Amino acid sequence: MSRTVAVVERILSANDQMALENRSELDAAGVLAVNLMASPGAGKTSLIMATVEALRDEFRIAGVDGDLATSIDADRIAALGVPAVQINTGGACHLDAVMLRGALPQLPLAELDLLLVENVGNLICPSGFRLGVHRNVLVASVPEGDDKPYKYPGMYQGVDSMLLNKMDVLDAFDFDIDYFRRGVEILNPGLAFFPLSCKTGEGLEAWLSWLRDEASAFRAAGGAGYEIR
Amino acid sequence: MSRTVAVVERILSANDQMALENRSELDAAGVLAVNLMASPGAGKTSLIMATVEALRDEFRIAGVDGDLATSIDADRIAALGVPAVQINTGGACHLDAVMLRGALPQLPLAELDLLLVENVGNLICPSGFRLGVHRNVLVASVPEGDDKPYKYPGMYQGVDSMLLNKMDVLDAFDFDIDYFRRGVEILNPGLAFFPLSCKTGEGLEAWLSWLRDEASAFRAAGGAGYEIR
Repeated sequence: MSRTVAVVERILSANDQMALENRSELDAAGVLAVNLMASPGAGKTSLIMATVEALRDEFRIAGVDGDLATSIDADRIAALGVPAVQINTGGACHLDAVMLRGALPQLPLAELDLLLVENVGNLICPSGFRLGVHRNVLVASVPEGDDKPYKYPGMYQGVDSMLLNKMDVLDAFDFDIDYFRRGVEILNPGLAFFPLSCKTGEGLEAWLSWLRDEASAFRAAGGAGYEIR
Repeated sequence: MSRTVAVVERILSANDQMALENRSELDAAGVLAVNLMASPGAGKTSLIMATVEALRDEFRIAGVDGDLATSIDADRIAALGVPAVQINTGGACHLDAVMLRGALPQLPLAELDLLLVENVGNLICPSGFRLGVHRNVLVASVPEGDDKPYKYPGMYQGVDSMLLNKMDVLDAFDFDIDYFRRGVEILNPGLAFFPLSCKTGEGLEAWLSWLRDEASAFRAAGGAGYEIR
């Protein structure tokens, strides 16, 4: 039994070690990397597309998209004319540091400022694997329901900011924003929260401001000095 | 290395062995068990509630609800006056046969006809673990988007019927039903498909008919003779 545990510990530590290497490479290149996590269909790709379109004159942006199969998401990002790499996990339910390690050499890091990483659609497993990015962001969405912080606490605890997407359909769903926010506040007090709609653009500016502030802090700290929360 | 593989095989085989025991117990009691899988917030609990309300005069029904935390779902089912057991997985991303094994003794199996099992909200991991139920059903939903069969093939391949919930908000989303169905048809040809809305009740009758037919076939086959697809 102790032998099995040792193997597991070695695997976890290998992932964390690889995450540190990713982080060092991103820091050296001056690329702020943000990991977006969400349920299937919450709007991660739509958020990346809206962000690219809004910030492409301020930042040189690229995307990495994780999915079990297909290159649908990376194709959508690449269609905007920015570099995009698709990671197919072959069935695995999350991205890990090794997968991101394999994607980085396919990107022109020296010519980038911002890397948006789209994790596999899953509200549970991705929170358990460090990638070596600088910030982790949760994309919640109105149709999922207001009880998700209570039911999926691990994901809500581990992120640096949170979006609530699809606000344009709020009236069509029984979604109590106060109940939702109380759940989040218990798990992650003071978490930055951005209700928005990637479809209409409503609320997007507050998210973009957060991202601009993070990018400024990252530049000011010279990459490696940037605090990981 | 071979030692590690052996451990994994033994764990998988233990789950399958436990699934067979669950199946035997359900067969002996004459309880048809259906496992509902879906993304977070697709409407599994709402479907169970609508099904209980529609069929409670025909069948004696109970529910088992899987979640990482809280008893929100089981409480909702129990409020209808039917037996409901909550399984908290403690962080695990799916139900397995051992968890269901622990729940069965808490149910009055001899007094039941139908057991509706709600898996953890996750479009990936639950498809890899047999529970020992008779049928597996996927609850898709319109807001998730029409590309999900392409991106999460494993889940779509392993089910016996599929619902598309939240049809009442179809007009608010860019959801191409033909594209969605083509993806499903590639993975699972001829799969029974029920577009519906648990909120309005639209389309619910076709799903109830399917469930009635399965219950009749189960009774006619005397439990153990009921084919597992």
